[in-house]
Amino acid sequence: MTILALDFGGTKHAAAILADPSERRWQKYERAFAPPNATAQTDIEMMRSLAQSVLQGEKPDAVGVSFGGPVNAHTGIVRLSHHVPGWENIPLQEILENEFQAPVAIDNDANVAALGEYHYGAGRDCSSLFYITVSTGVGGGWILNGQPWRGCEGMAGEIGHTVVDPNGPMCLCGKQGCVERLTSGPYIAQRVQDILQRSRSQGRILRALVQGNIEAITAQQVNEAAEMGDAIAIQALQQAGWALGVGIGNAANFLNPQLFVLGGGVSKAGQHFWQAVRHSARNTALPEITVAIVPAQLGDDAPLWGAVALATGI
Amino acid sequence: MTILALDFGGTKHAAAILADPSERRWQKYERAFAPPNATAQTDIEMMRSLAQSVLQGEKPDAVGVSFGGPVNAHTGIVRLSHHVPGWENIPLQEILENEFQAPVAIDNDANVAALGEYHYGAGRDCSSLFYITVSTGVGGGWILNGQPWRGCEGMAGEIGHTVVDPNGPMCLCGKQGCVERLTSGPYIAQRVQDILQRSRSQGRILRALVQGNIEAITAQQVNEAAEMGDAIAIQALQQAGWALGVGIGNAANFLNPQLFVLGGGVSKAGQHFWQAVRHSARNTALPEITVAIVPAQLGDDAPLWGAVALATGI
Repeated sequence: MTILALDFGGTKHAAAILADPSERRWQKYERAFAPPNATAQTDIEMMRSLAQSVLQGEKPDAVGVSFGGPVNAHTGIVRLSHHVPGWENIPLQEILENEFQAPVAIDNDANVAALGEYHYGAGRDCSSLFYITVSTGVGGGWILNGQPWRGCEGMAGEIGHTVVDPNGPMCLCGKQGCVERLTSGPYIAQRVQDILQRSRSQGRILRALVQGNIEAITAQQVNEAAEMGDAIAIQALQQAGWALGVGIGNAANFLNPQLFVLGGGVSKAGQHFWQAVRHSARNTALPEITVAIVPAQLGDDAPLWGAVALATGI
Repeated sequence: MTILALDFGGTKHAAAILADPSERRWQKYERAFAPPNATAQTDIEMMRSLAQSVLQGEKPDAVGVSFGGPVNAHTGIVRLSHHVPGWENIPLQEILENEFQAPVAIDNDANVAALGEYHYGAGRDCSSLFYITVSTGVGGGWILNGQPWRGCEGMAGEIGHTVVDPNGPMCLCGKQGCVERLTSGPYIAQRVQDILQRSRSQGRILRALVQGNIEAITAQQVNEAAEMGDAIAIQALQQAGWALGVGIGNAANFLNPQLFVLGGGVSKAGQHFWQAVRHSARNTALPEITVAIVPAQLGDDAPLWGAVALATGI
């Protein structure tokens, strides 16, 4: 049996094949960056070539697909991509079924990664979990009773746009104080940049780390500086962690899942971030509710492993 | 077939029997107020007598029970009552199975009312809904894929203690800006009382309505005054509606259910409250998410109808 797993990311694509889903080891695996001027067409072309490279003439028995944007999992039609033009209403499932002459199952990356962590990662002992990815954006996917919960319009899991501070800063979505606006990587970096530009006396460690190039500071560098003791960097991560923690605590009050699994670049931040997340989630959830928050185990491969689960319908 | 439905409320108890679940008409129905100094023991005694009165010697084939407080639906053990002493760890399911010699199913009132509205009320055409009761407290119950979702510790649905304003007033639970602290009936009344006591020139209509007895103002009177155009009363209902709407919008972003059903005393408020709820829920949910909010249809009988669904396992 050959399972083909495909991951259409915002900036990276990946394809892998698996002969035995119980084995947890890819037979072949390819990952590549999309060009900066990518379109839906070039994304599909690139994926075709990655798939050919891992399949080497073999025919897959089933194909699972993770897509980095809103998808209708029932019809297999991509709604759009927030990163790449041309994805509006593309019937990706149909295109891939014609391509591979095999059944194709497709869903958005947060739902698929949730499925991956549930079957192969941090959530293996659970029957319910909420997977949250915190990177450029903040999204999530539910597993309830061992099954993905997608919502009646396929829009469930949008923790990034839940409001945790109605007087907070304005989000791209038009609301104030969304989790994404307070926790995503670019906003962590931006907050620190703003403070350093306003006040010349603060952020000594961070300034040294980026050699004065404040405009180029990334969330990863904020984390590095925090680990080295930079007070501004620590504060920025604590604020981001506080907001995510309120979102998680609210999710715990609403759904009381067994486990929260954090993935995405920002989740790789250190103790200052994680302590703030756990502290504010614990304070936000009712005392009777257990709030267990753990790092994702599958890293960048969570969507590929979830695609396997999707393809095999386990 | 005789189904016995029991509703242990905070202040009122009810028992009813149904011969045919498809009929939607009680064969017998009794409701009574609990005495002010009630205990678990007196509650059970009162329910025994209500049940005997509706059964008139008949033996029920199945019993469904709604309990106004946290319950472990799997073991049938009441955790406690927030209103009545002595309910800690009472094995109510076992007590009632011995009493009636029939299978008994039991859950908390919000979950049971959700089941009632789903099978017999506002949610009959849905496969997913969130039922919210807004009265002295604010609670909720989920129906997902046609089944109650109780959470891994039976604590799901606690919208009342989700945070919508981290700088808001302090809730009994110890957090600031919970939905319950901003939306429940007693707090709507208290806010208005505080304003009227601070400022002698405001709330003319409301003062006239309660004949100057400000300390005794209820949320119901706030609503009456709002309908008559009292600016303070209107503002209080709008603020309460705003907070509930943020909670509902957050729930929509998290779970994307088909329908929100509002029950409880405060949901009987007029347009000022409902417009604020719908407006803020719409603004809080992502534009791609439909947010439909309707009043409960079964009123005080929602838990009894839900108990029927629980008993028959439909």
